[in-house]
Amino acid sequence: MRDFLPADVRRREYVIGVIKEVYERYGFEPLETPAVENIETLMGKYGEEGNQLIFKILKRGVHESTGEADLALRYDLTVPLARVVAEYRHKLPKFFKRYQIQPVWRADRPARGRFREFYQCDVDVLGSRSMIVEAELCAAASEALTKLGFTDFTIRLNHRLGLTGVLGSASVPPEMHDAAVVALDKLDKIGREGVEKELVERGIDRSSGSRLLNFFVELNSLERAAEITAGEDPAKKREALNAAILGRLVEFVGENETGARGVDELRSIIRLAAASGIASRIKIDPRLARGLSYYTGAIMEISVKDLSGSLGGGGRYDNLVGMFLGQDVPACGFSLGLERIIVMMTEREMFPPTLATAPADVMVTILDNAPSSGVDSLVLARELRGEGLRVDVYPVPNAKLGVQMGYASKRGIPIVVMVGEDERARGEVSIKDMRTGEQRSVSRESVAAEVRREKIQSRLNEG
Amino acid sequence: MRDFLPADVRRREYVIGVIKEVYERYGFEPLETPAVENIETLMGKYGEEGNQLIFKILKRGVHESTGEADLALRYDLTVPLARVVAEYRHKLPKFFKRYQIQPVWRADRPARGRFREFYQCDVDVLGSRSMIVEAELCAAASEALTKLGFTDFTIRLNHRLGLTGVLGSASVPPEMHDAAVVALDKLDKIGREGVEKELVERGIDRSSGSRLLNFFVELNSLERAAEITAGEDPAKKREALNAAILGRLVEFVGENETGARGVDELRSIIRLAAASGIASRIKIDPRLARGLSYYTGAIMEISVKDLSGSLGGGGRYDNLVGMFLGQDVPACGFSLGLERIIVMMTEREMFPPTLATAPADVMVTILDNAPSSGVDSLVLARELRGEGLRVDVYPVPNAKLGVQMGYASKRGIPIVVMVGEDERARGEVSIKDMRTGEQRSVSRESVAAEVRREKIQSRLNEG
Repeated sequence: MRDFLPADVRRREYVIGVIKEVYERYGFEPLETPAVENIETLMGKYGEEGNQLIFKILKRGVHESTGEADLALRYDLTVPLARVVAEYRHKLPKFFKRYQIQPVWRADRPARGRFREFYQCDVDVLGSRSMIVEAELCAAASEALTKLGFTDFTIRLNHRLGLTGVLGSASVPPEMHDAAVVALDKLDKIGREGVEKELVERGIDRSSGSRLLNFFVELNSLERAAEITAGEDPAKKREALNAAILGRLVEFVGENETGARGVDELRSIIRLAAASGIASRIKIDPRLARGLSYYTGAIMEISVKDLSGSLGGGGRYDNLVGMFLGQDVPACGFSLGLERIIVMMTEREMFPPTLATAPADVMVTILDNAPSSGVDSLVLARELRGEGLRVDVYPVPNAKLGVQMGYASKRGIPIVVMVGEDERARGEVSIKDMRTGEQRSVSRESVAAEVRREKIQSRLNEG
Repeated sequence: MRDFLPADVRRREYVIGVIKEVYERYGFEPLETPAVENIETLMGKYGEEGNQLIFKILKRGVHESTGEADLALRYDLTVPLARVVAEYRHKLPKFFKRYQIQPVWRADRPARGRFREFYQCDVDVLGSRSMIVEAELCAAASEALTKLGFTDFTIRLNHRLGLTGVLGSASVPPEMHDAAVVALDKLDKIGREGVEKELVERGIDRSSGSRLLNFFVELNSLERAAEITAGEDPAKKREALNAAILGRLVEFVGENETGARGVDELRSIIRLAAASGIASRIKIDPRLARGLSYYTGAIMEISVKDLSGSLGGGGRYDNLVGMFLGQDVPACGFSLGLERIIVMMTEREMFPPTLATAPADVMVTILDNAPSSGVDSLVLARELRGEGLRVDVYPVPNAKLGVQMGYASKRGIPIVVMVGEDERARGEVSIKDMRTGEQRSVSRESVAAEVRREKIQSRLNEG
């Protein structure tokens, strides 16, 4: 787990601010839930591995010595949302569109871009089964990333029912679906023969495996063909490829009703996403599976060049709220991974230069030894703050002026104001521009206005 | 522990935003630390009661069954700060001025305005022993509360050394100081005789008790006398009272060196706080003790009418960092209690009315049954969002227009835009003002500009 020093916090707040602003424009409202949930709320929702990765909290007081846990740290933001929707259903609107940007905790082994405390930025719509929701979610996540400066991301889209249909059409029995998906996921790495072998090892019939591989290998060639088609605009190219993939899916799934419904929904999402202006972002990926067991419909994952793993993902989970409420509420959501976004933005130097701000616009010095110098400096600081300036006061009296100037310079504070004995006698103060080294005296009355002017001027020079 | 629904989050973010803005103007920088600390970092820092109130986290994996804890939830923001300063001392500036606004957890019995997860808003200066720090902290906290609309608060100020000096001068032995402070704290409730009796019961010499009570009862009369003095401005009145209290303290403490140093520092703080413009806010309260054992100098607590307990408090703790670093770093800080601030602001209706915002500026309807209506609505929503508007799209197709309008009305969304079949044929859309009920058709091209105009107009009408 990490500490965030001031420059880190400013970067995090910048990213969070952009994401919030976009989500608000899509009509989402903020929700916050406590870090700690009852342990039974979380257990059993994330599979066996998840159960082990949950941080559990000891009972307190006399029960502490039992070694039993009754509380646990939030593992994601989706299960707490489902609990909230069940708990406050009469206070919430019929369609609850919420975003939530808070930390979650997993007792994973830390790795690059993976931490035991990390922030998720979730956005979910509850109460509607319409694919308008999927399209809006993809558009919102897409706009947030675009606003942050990402230009090379793709939202991979698939559908759990479509996937079930494809596997069913290839006569893979339902209990083997997970195993098949895991093997197929390796197609790009170990090739057709490798996967064929693995499918057999996992107990899947050779002819089923062969049908599946014919299908997916053909999709891969479709994609490669689309990639080398030149001269078209990216949105049209993507739309053509998605249409081709949908065509193959329809063919392959055939009479399989589950599969056909999944493919229909994918088609709707593509159509509505195009209306939302993100046709070029979405790519149907019939192999995409996503780990979590609670998904029931569309699933999405954001890929970006040079990043193994994803910047975020989501999907439809129409049954999760029902686990708390005893009555299903349709739901679909998207989660952006704040830590990975920040890692990528740092590596690619995508943060605006203005973020590297000095801790203050101006520092007020304290004059050596003068008994009232602290008073003069604080009065001046107060005036400058009244003008909206961020003001630091050198916090030790009797320090040599050179030491004080050195401190301001080291901290990157652009302007220093000095109230010296002589200046005070003349009713003046000195203003020093730490970048140019220029120093001038101004009347005590005009100092706040002068510093403000200088700050604006130096901003203009930077820009 | 509580969930914060959208209206709650907006109130919390408003308060946090005001506090941050003020702290930034005082030259403080943001810091964030993880929710979870190593258990040994926290244990023993908050006294025996504190140890019991710390939420402890079970070891993971194979160690889970041992029932042992190795991690714990943050109990305040001061101890993590001390750890950070020790850990990153070479990366931090000589004077580290940080604010930190994050939740902390205590296994207290919940009560009104007291929760097991609650936010603290801390502001601390490390590296300086100067009283400029105390004055700046009081001014910053004071300005934050003023900006939030509090007009009736007082910062009670005392000094640990002053208190030690007073008790020493009354010949209370050091090991009895805590007991004496607890008894004296009840003076206003149980009166002089009650306290006299309690002091004796707690084993304090009758003559010591009597000297103490003479002193504190006299201070009380000083205060009452000051309260009924009419006609002066509050700052001058306060300054006169503080000067009188300082005079009595000097007299009482006499030759006691510790006490004299404490009184000197109080005098400096008062003088510098006046320069910072908060003379009317500060009141020396020689009985103020504050619970935490790590304070070494000035201590402060913010009182407000009608609130037992305080809105915040703080003090100087020059030895705490040394517990981590093995080398003392002077430090002083102030903590505002976010939850109490919000409780009071809610009770007193101090939140700006503009906070009760609708979830969106405008809702776009979806036309019944038209196969492309979702598409038209999403295209329109995208344009409106491009204008910076917060836009909701009714997320279910095939809903009757009346149902959609009812939903917008219930949610308080002020404007609804409709793309009907007829309008589409004419290249128009309809805009309905939900407050006045007025509806008009505008050309498809001008809709974004029109909605923007209408939004601004309705803001003006409200204002």
